[in-house]
Amino acid sequence: MGKKYDELMTYVEKMQALGMAEGLFDWDLETAAPPQAAALTAGVMGSLSSQYFEILTSPQVGGLIGQAAEEELDETQRAIVRELAKERDRLCRIPAQEYREYAQLTAGAAQVWARAKRDNDFASFAPTLAHIVEMSKKIAAYNKKEGQSTYDAMLWQYEEGFGQAVLDPFFALLREHIVPLLQRVMTEGKPVSIAPLRQSFAVDKQREFNRFLAEYVGFDFDRGVLAESEHPFTIGLHNHDVRITTHYYENLLESAMFSTIHESGHAVYEMNVDDALTLTPVAGGASCGMHESQSRLMENMIGRSPAFWEPLYPRLRELFAGELAGVSGEDFVRMINRVSPSLIRTEADELTYCLHVMIRYEIEKEMIDGSLDVRELPRVWNDKYEEYLGVRPVSDAEGVLQDIHWAQGSIGYFPSYALGNAFAAQIYRAMDRQIDIDGSLRRSDLAPVRAWLKEKIHRFGRVKPTAELLRDATGEDFNPQYYIDYLTEKFTGLYDLK
Amino acid sequence: MGKKYDELMTYVEKMQALGMAEGLFDWDLETAAPPQAAALTAGVMGSLSSQYFEILTSPQVGGLIGQAAEEELDETQRAIVRELAKERDRLCRIPAQEYREYAQLTAGAAQVWARAKRDNDFASFAPTLAHIVEMSKKIAAYNKKEGQSTYDAMLWQYEEGFGQAVLDPFFALLREHIVPLLQRVMTEGKPVSIAPLRQSFAVDKQREFNRFLAEYVGFDFDRGVLAESEHPFTIGLHNHDVRITTHYYENLLESAMFSTIHESGHAVYEMNVDDALTLTPVAGGASCGMHESQSRLMENMIGRSPAFWEPLYPRLRELFAGELAGVSGEDFVRMINRVSPSLIRTEADELTYCLHVMIRYEIEKEMIDGSLDVRELPRVWNDKYEEYLGVRPVSDAEGVLQDIHWAQGSIGYFPSYALGNAFAAQIYRAMDRQIDIDGSLRRSDLAPVRAWLKEKIHRFGRVKPTAELLRDATGEDFNPQYYIDYLTEKFTGLYDLK
Repeated sequence: MGKKYDELMTYVEKMQALGMAEGLFDWDLETAAPPQAAALTAGVMGSLSSQYFEILTSPQVGGLIGQAAEEELDETQRAIVRELAKERDRLCRIPAQEYREYAQLTAGAAQVWARAKRDNDFASFAPTLAHIVEMSKKIAAYNKKEGQSTYDAMLWQYEEGFGQAVLDPFFALLREHIVPLLQRVMTEGKPVSIAPLRQSFAVDKQREFNRFLAEYVGFDFDRGVLAESEHPFTIGLHNHDVRITTHYYENLLESAMFSTIHESGHAVYEMNVDDALTLTPVAGGASCGMHESQSRLMENMIGRSPAFWEPLYPRLRELFAGELAGVSGEDFVRMINRVSPSLIRTEADELTYCLHVMIRYEIEKEMIDGSLDVRELPRVWNDKYEEYLGVRPVSDAEGVLQDIHWAQGSIGYFPSYALGNAFAAQIYRAMDRQIDIDGSLRRSDLAPVRAWLKEKIHRFGRVKPTAELLRDATGEDFNPQYYIDYLTEKFTGLYDLK
Repeated sequence: MGKKYDELMTYVEKMQALGMAEGLFDWDLETAAPPQAAALTAGVMGSLSSQYFEILTSPQVGGLIGQAAEEELDETQRAIVRELAKERDRLCRIPAQEYREYAQLTAGAAQVWARAKRDNDFASFAPTLAHIVEMSKKIAAYNKKEGQSTYDAMLWQYEEGFGQAVLDPFFALLREHIVPLLQRVMTEGKPVSIAPLRQSFAVDKQREFNRFLAEYVGFDFDRGVLAESEHPFTIGLHNHDVRITTHYYENLLESAMFSTIHESGHAVYEMNVDDALTLTPVAGGASCGMHESQSRLMENMIGRSPAFWEPLYPRLRELFAGELAGVSGEDFVRMINRVSPSLIRTEADELTYCLHVMIRYEIEKEMIDGSLDVRELPRVWNDKYEEYLGVRPVSDAEGVLQDIHWAQGSIGYFPSYALGNAFAAQIYRAMDRQIDIDGSLRRSDLAPVRAWLKEKIHRFGRVKPTAELLRDATGEDFNPQYYIDYLTEKFTGLYDLK
């Protein structure tokens, strides 16, 4: 092992501790902290973040990264140096003053957005959004690679290698196939009522079942915590401490269940990262999209399949014997897969979900290239919803103001949600060729599924870039046709279309 | 405001963030973290602690402290510089290598102690304890002031100004009065049965009542959290985020209640620290003993008084109507004040508590001056329990091995528990001269009590040293006679002694 690499790792240890502390504060603010804590705690988190920034951008660390890269390193060590170099480079290119201004702008913008959403008043948010667009363009420009558009640079920040050259044809393919498929489902398919899932389901019993579900899909409670928060999320501190939340609604039985399975998918990824990688810069998932692929695969391809519920549904029906008395297992599977175009992305069904993302992609692209003025957003947003989903928001609160992402400066993030679904379909198909997934699910034995995912994806953490990981795991490059085929087959079958 | 002081504060901000992050990890490990998290998380906490150490002991901070001390500063600023200088000086005197060795020794010792306690095997802990005594003497010696004994230096670490010259006569006074008072209670007093408090009390109802109790004594749930842990504790992150825990036992009704009131006493202190002090080195309580005075005052002098329960007991009896049907308010107050010499300090009643501490003081003193070999501890311990309390441990697990303190290297800490009780009595008496405490309690109005404590004690944080704070608040120097008088009056009355 190289000497400079070891010295570099003493700085990495500090950065990891600071980053993990920030993660714990994030978790704590959503799950435990008292109402008035946030204001003072924000300053503390800002200081931890600055200390991280200071270490990474210091000349010493810059020098050590350069020297370590020249040493003889194994694959993991090379990946660690590569990730550090990339992150440092990205931060160093942005003038500190602009970085600070942008951080302040987006920190304050969340409140402006929240008020605008509450008051259904897009106009009060528009100037802030315009400012964010302007500054984020400037900041992204510092990291533009040759031949890239500014939007490409934003996209790469979340999903390296997946710029407009990949996403334009990807979303075109989705549009071409899913929009007509959706129309067929809505016109030719037999409507599914989910009224039975809208009764009152005791939250205590839901808690019991969700804990069981999380463990069933592989969440290890010796190394993880399931808590409750307003919006479900996952946070991995290290591979022996991964935390998820869910949110119970008394009248929406399936809501908590599928968010628990979704977050468990993220968590199992983090728990299965190789021990040698944890607490290093390559401990997390390969990318946003790859992480999302693991949550979506677990939630939708596994968790909404008939085989998954064959052994489980009787157990659920036993728990809610009165409420589910008249609901067969087949009915239940149809209900949890019901297609119903709606206004809100986070509540979307599996088929329409990616159309919500597509709309955001189309809008972001034009917002960044300057062809769309932010003041025009509500009209464009509503038109697109009408065109693709057949529904039109009557308020901006359930339209263009629904997501916090832009207020946080996360422009270019949305596409990774859709990519995650497409990665998941490609991975699922490759796994299905090698192991009998449905048979395992019917036997209540998810071990083969988890073992395959761990072997092919999870254990690598961020050592391999997403494109390479996907290729190695599935035997081919990214191919969104699997996603189209999966959706087409699934919903043609469920809705008995010709 | 001085320029160097401002520069110094940029370092203080970093140290505060690191310290607060450590505090949050402490809290989290006891209340939320999954079972397997601790091992990896310990490394992260170690790194945060090292980063704190590095900043404080850096030459830059040393220089700034010296320069800031020369500037024109207000009282708070002077106190901040003073506390920083003191902490830095203490750390800098200890050679880094020895400090690390000692930290490793005590980190590992906790497990050795836990095993020895579990197996009731003091001999397996003795060599480790001998090693800790040896190293802690060496480390304390670096910070010995002129004329001090090594044990004095240890004592000052927790309670500045309260060395053997104060503690020898203090404990002699306790021995002289409390040992005979206890004997009279046990021989002349009418025995009190607490059987009614040993029934099954639904934990859900206990939770409800404890939350109410905490709020009743002044715990602000907008700025605090009440959780559950094995051993109750308080942690203040800043004055808008103070957290306490309690522990419910189905068969011990009063256990959770008085630990909740106790920890609330600590918490109210932290919550009432002046806004200008929070997130600075003078934000916490003045000292261990002063902090303990606020928890004990709330728990014992307020929380076990007849006036406190006059309006509250009907409410408790309503909640546990069946279980408490035959228990009058007077009975209840006698039960929660029952004197019963026992083996375990943390379960001790108010009268015998300080005798437990006195035994530890006598033993520590001889252990440190070298006149007592650690191998002799069990015999000496048991003899002292028999002499002062009239009970003799039959196992070391409930004898000399009961407390974790020595395994953590906290030698010299115990006396602050007894000092806290004595400070509380002196403070209570001073307050009682100025406001009608019992009247307020009977009216269910603790506001005057809290206002007095805030005005005289809490708001100052650590700006004033304990001795000065006590003098300013009560009008005289530390005087343990108040504690003797309080105990004598209270237990002579309760047990109807002549």
